[in-house]
Amino acid sequence: MKLNILGCYSATPRTFTNPTSQVLEINNHLFMIDCGEGTQVQLRKHKIKFNRIKHIFISHLHGDHFFGLVGLISTFRLLGREADLHIHAPKGLKEVITLQMKLANSWTNYNLYFHELNSKSSELIFEDDKVEVHTIPLDHRVYTNGFLFKEKAGDRKLDLNAVLNNNIDVAYYRKLKQGFDVINEDGHLIKNETVTLPPNKAKSYAFCSDTAYNEAIIPIIDKVDVLYHESTFLDQHLKLAKPTKHSTAKQAASIAKQANVGQLILGHYSTRYEDLNLFKIEAQTVFDNVLLGDDGKVFEF
Amino acid sequence: MKLNILGCYSATPRTFTNPTSQVLEINNHLFMIDCGEGTQVQLRKHKIKFNRIKHIFISHLHGDHFFGLVGLISTFRLLGREADLHIHAPKGLKEVITLQMKLANSWTNYNLYFHELNSKSSELIFEDDKVEVHTIPLDHRVYTNGFLFKEKAGDRKLDLNAVLNNNIDVAYYRKLKQGFDVINEDGHLIKNETVTLPPNKAKSYAFCSDTAYNEAIIPIIDKVDVLYHESTFLDQHLKLAKPTKHSTAKQAASIAKQANVGQLILGHYSTRYEDLNLFKIEAQTVFDNVLLGDDGKVFEF
Repeated sequence: MKLNILGCYSATPRTFTNPTSQVLEINNHLFMIDCGEGTQVQLRKHKIKFNRIKHIFISHLHGDHFFGLVGLISTFRLLGREADLHIHAPKGLKEVITLQMKLANSWTNYNLYFHELNSKSSELIFEDDKVEVHTIPLDHRVYTNGFLFKEKAGDRKLDLNAVLNNNIDVAYYRKLKQGFDVINEDGHLIKNETVTLPPNKAKSYAFCSDTAYNEAIIPIIDKVDVLYHESTFLDQHLKLAKPTKHSTAKQAASIAKQANVGQLILGHYSTRYEDLNLFKIEAQTVFDNVLLGDDGKVFEF
Repeated sequence: MKLNILGCYSATPRTFTNPTSQVLEINNHLFMIDCGEGTQVQLRKHKIKFNRIKHIFISHLHGDHFFGLVGLISTFRLLGREADLHIHAPKGLKEVITLQMKLANSWTNYNLYFHELNSKSSELIFEDDKVEVHTIPLDHRVYTNGFLFKEKAGDRKLDLNAVLNNNIDVAYYRKLKQGFDVINEDGHLIKNETVTLPPNKAKSYAFCSDTAYNEAIIPIIDKVDVLYHESTFLDQHLKLAKPTKHSTAKQAASIAKQANVGQLILGHYSTRYEDLNLFKIEAQTVFDNVLLGDDGKVFEF
């Protein structure tokens, strides 16, 4: 998995800071998460192929998370896109986008599908043979979801030497990868675990922004490899975090600790702070494995 | 007058080119014209004071001319704006903006006025004691207006030596500036032109984008000091200009010549061309005084 942070600052786009957008590369998918103003320029700067993005997940309808979407949809059209595009977003977004296409008399020449969300429980919103995406209901000022991306457990891997030594017909290899015992050319039963190795570990990534401190998400994100959790404020501004339904770095770390996640990436910083390291220092008082998200950073895991 | 070109490329925002937006400084007003995606970042880069913008004029509802507006309106709110904001735009924009504010549950704390346009004739849409703004109906794929900004003729200027020599009471100075003859302290009639000088020349600026070649605008922009006219294409691509209702550099120059304007500024270039000088060279075959618009350029006149 590879996570491209295109923007991770709250509120308004500025000369050197961008509102929220990420592209997660997972099992050959490029999933975009949120799309603040300027995201299409960030995609160009970071040389991410527009056409490989087939699914866009929008957490909520505050401008810093979706004002770049209508322009991206329009640019896809101008670039001659043919591939389908799926938008998973809170109810209301379809109306906003289609109204603007109607006024411009500019409809897409590719298929554009809106999957509008309104459930308050976690739900499976995308699945293929390798990946699942679930919503993570968050607690913000408007209806908001985080997203949990989970690889499915892959096939077992052949231990090629062992397979050859055991004289197994090639036609059984698929069954071996699926975990079955097989009969070899000599008529003997070969136990699966003697000729295969465990699959690569299925990885998982949870995106949680924007949200107040919310323990209800802990069971959903339990033991994810990587958690991106917003930390708009430092603890010194807890009084601002509460009414705006945002989190502090310390709260993000507390969620990470309780959910036993592998790594925590912080982001959605208020631009009032000059030194991002303060976020890391604060979070590490609670949870060790903290990374600072920043525009243009790429995390591989 | 001072014209700040924030963006003057057609279609999509790119790493080093921005969609249309300009800020015209005229008689203490900062008028914004069009507001493509990323305009608020361009304002920051060029250090234009957000709060001094009270009127925004939107030519038409293609994305490259207004997708940055909703974010700018939202940023004004986050910056604690108190001043009124007036948006002059084609009918439909109010619905787009208010729908997004409703979904975000984020209403402005300043007064936001929409002045929706739908007339197909030139009309006066703003006036104070120093400036007038008129629409310039253009010929594009959707309802589109250019905008004509005209200073009003100012007061005559006192020729102070002459005024003193003629023994005129200070209380008459205002009348002199307004062009009246006055009686001096000795009871003589003093002819206005003997003690005053003509006012500064009232300047005018016409913004015409996007439009097909359209001679109907010539009487409206007759003898303006500066004409910004779109030149999306070079003459070699006239076949593209026609169906898309855009102009070539040569056509822009022909309009400038027929309208006897002072200077022509080109812009709204298609990004297919690597060398902007080709636009200038082509236009100058028809009209001499051609300037190339470009992002970040400031023209004073």
